[in-house]
Amino acid sequence: MKVTVHRKAHFNAAHRLYNKNWNMDKNDEVFGKCNNPHYHGHNYELVTSVTGEIDPVTGYVIDMKVLKDLIKEEVEDKLDHKNLNEQVKEFQNLNPTAENIAVVIWNKLRNKLDQKLDLEVTLYETPRNFVTYKGE
Amino acid sequence: MKVTVHRKAHFNAAHRLYNKNWNMDKNDEVFGKCNNPHYHGHNYELVTSVTGEIDPVTGYVIDMKVLKDLIKEEVEDKLDHKNLNEQVKEFQNLNPTAENIAVVIWNKLRNKLDQKLDLEVTLYETPRNFVTYKGE
Amino acid sequence: MKVTVHRKAHFNAAHRLYNKNWNMDKNDEVFGKCNNPHYHGHNYELVTSVTGEIDPVTGYVIDMKVLKDLIKEEVEDKLDHKNLNEQVKEFQNLNPTAENIAVVIWNKLRNKLDQKLDLEVTLYETPRNFVTYKGE
Amino acid sequence: MKVTVHRKAHFNAAHRLYNKNWNMDKNDEVFGKCNNPHYHGHNYELVTSVTGEIDPVTGYVIDMKVLKDLIKEEVEDKLDHKNLNEQVKEFQNLNPTAENIAVVIWNKLRNKLDQKLDLEVTLYETPRNFVTYKGE
Amino acid sequence: MKVTVHRKAHFNAAHRLYNKNWNMDKNDEVFGKCNNPHYHGHNYELVTSVTGEIDPVTGYVIDMKVLKDLIKEEVEDKLDHKNLNEQVKEFQNLNPTAENIAVVIWNKLRNKLDQKLDLEVTLYETPRNFVTYKGE
Amino acid sequence: MKVTVHRKAHFNAAHRLYNKNWNMDKNDEVFGKCNNPHYHGHNYELVTSVTGEIDPVTGYVIDMKVLKDLIKEEVEDKLDHKNLNEQVKEFQNLNPTAENIAVVIWNKLRNKLDQKLDLEVTLYETPRNFVTYKGE
Repeated sequence: MKVTVHRKAHFNAAHRLYNKNWNMDKNDEVFGKCNNPHYHGHNYELVTSVTGEIDPVTGYVIDMKVLKDLIKEEVEDKLDHKNLNEQVKEFQNLNPTAENIAVVIWNKLRNKLDQKLDLEVTLYETPRNFVTYKGE
Repeated sequence: MKVTVHRKAHFNAAHRLYNKNWNMDKNDEVFGKCNNPHYHGHNYELVTSVTGEIDPVTGYVIDMKVLKDLIKEEVEDKLDHKNLNEQVKEFQNLNPTAENIAVVIWNKLRNKLDQKLDLEVTLYETPRNFVTYKGE
Repeated sequence: MKVTVHRKAHFNAAHRLYNKNWNMDKNDEVFGKCNNPHYHGHNYELVTSVTGEIDPVTGYVIDMKVLKDLIKEEVEDKLDHKNLNEQVKEFQNLNPTAENIAVVIWNKLRNKLDQKLDLEVTLYETPRNFVTYKGE
Repeated sequence: MKVTVHRKAHFNAAHRLYNKNWNMDKNDEVFGKCNNPHYHGHNYELVTSVTGEIDPVTGYVIDMKVLKDLIKEEVEDKLDHKNLNEQVKEFQNLNPTAENIAVVIWNKLRNKLDQKLDLEVTLYETPRNFVTYKGE
Repeated sequence: MKVTVHRKAHFNAAHRLYNKNWNMDKNDEVFGKCNNPHYHGHNYELVTSVTGEIDPVTGYVIDMKVLKDLIKEEVEDKLDHKNLNEQVKEFQNLNPTAENIAVVIWNKLRNKLDQKLDLEVTLYETPRNFVTYKGE
Repeated sequence: MKVTVHRKAHFNAAHRLYNKNWNMDKNDEVFGKCNNPHYHGHNYELVTSVTGEIDPVTGYVIDMKVLKDLIKEEVEDKLDHKNLNEQVKEFQNLNPTAENIAVVIWNKLRNKLDQKLDLEVTLYETPRNFVTYKGE
């Protein structure tokens, strides 16, 4: 019996969207006010979804406390209250769009998660804009 | 790397559920108070989900502003503050159930969307009743 | 010890905003697309707030089941799945704006509620537009 | 045209997580404060998702009222305001984790649902912890 | 300039509503299924609202971290994952209705809060039932 | 008949909390990770509440479209996708705590609003932290 377990977390961060190879006008045209050089920010909400068999001894797919701690170490401690462009190495040459942030988070969690478990992440940049990535 | 990008929108509309080929009693039996000939209405919430590869130059699957404008033109401008039965041609011979509204919206958006992108829509008729359609 | 007890309920209805003494142009100018003669509609969410002393025998200000039933009889049964302009007598000569609907609901509930209890209602027309009335 | 219809319901219940074959220390180690022998409880939110073809006569995949009544009979009437460990026979030898509750609810609904329809359930134990099961 | 600062917290607990001086029939009549002797439970959401002058040096009415820690010590550590009737001394002779829980929480926080600050608490027993107390 | 009309809006911004007269250590001690010199950010949600008499001709306290446009001009256009410390003049010598942002917004709206109307603003910095100001 395969069940998916979902855990919600959040972090606040500043970012700016732009392509280093473009000039300011081109960046403004493509990214609009998201290209503000002084940055803007979001309350990101993250739903981490882990799929696997129920352990018949515990009734758990994964201990929610273990999953919560993993998200804290790999995501919250590294991204919360940070400037993504300036202070997070994965975005030094990668535009911190919601799509790319989701892929970066998925990779961080995938590395630490038992290979028997499937992983999907959904990242809310705002309550109206969100993205999903499952490593495909 | 395939990512799904979700965008939330909303519109308010009036509708009535009934089958033109049935008499009032039969319609009341099947559709209950949704068959009120004077109409009732909803705040519809729409989640449009678009799946595709991340463009390595922008970091976007689709520019959210482009998607937002597309939803505005194809859905909000055509359905918001309308009487679906009386004023929207797709429902002249189609019962405006949540299921059928979702299919109509999916078709409108699918026509305008790059064929490389997959599309799914989720339509909330109320916070407790909602439907999903992905063109299958 | 005075406590306020809140109960959330909802109903769906169609309406149209207009002033019978004005022509169509004037109504369009003031009420915009809310003046659609074919109606539009909303999922109204209602929060009913009742303030009074805690009964030391039960620990209740008011039995929530009693309050729930009162809201059902006075509000849901009379407004749910109705066309407010056409089918609700209070709006025959009163524009069914959120403000006026809140006042009508407050009056209906006030009539049935023990005079020792204070009453306030908050009515959500959409998640972004809502009104509060407390009889002052 | 296959559409998924979702219906949200809820119930409140008490439970305790533990393995009858373990002693108290081992249970505390694995289940922490969820092993409180005096129980704790939750407001469970349930989303039932039913997938099938739209009936061209009604425009429904399934009549939402039929689905709502089925969820009431099979889930709410049996679990609401209950102690899951003490009063629900399915959990006499099964740990009432969110995962196992979702499987039990899925089985109850699956038995009563037309075999042409697919079924998935999502159960929220808290707004931050939830699980999904679709019978695979 | 007086500002109100609100902080949201939550805890899960089991409880039973009954009056020790009444027999089972009378308790069933008044409290219905809330009188289940095996208990049921809720995810309580608590909004703590503190009103005071903005400190011109920090820009804070109260440091949110201080308020968060106070709520953790006085409310979460004492009520989370507990059986209110059996394990919380304030309810040994007090029915744990939402009204009474709000008063107990208000008293706990009031004792620890600077007298210059006003206090109000709103306690959600479910998303549809909630209460407010401000010590009057 | 006095009714309060509420309108929800939002904006995203970056900020940093610190006191220019303190050194880094003192700022870290008081503001913790909110003192990150590279900034962090939030999705701010704003509820603007306007209280006044219902106009008997329109049924409005204030035309919601007028209020929406006022909030757009005075708040969204000036704060959305901005760095509050660097790009908003009101915060050049004022720490952009939620408390101070609420006061600044209230002042901006108060200046443009008819004196017959009362004004209150509630600003959510995160879903768990929010503040209310009504000019007292």
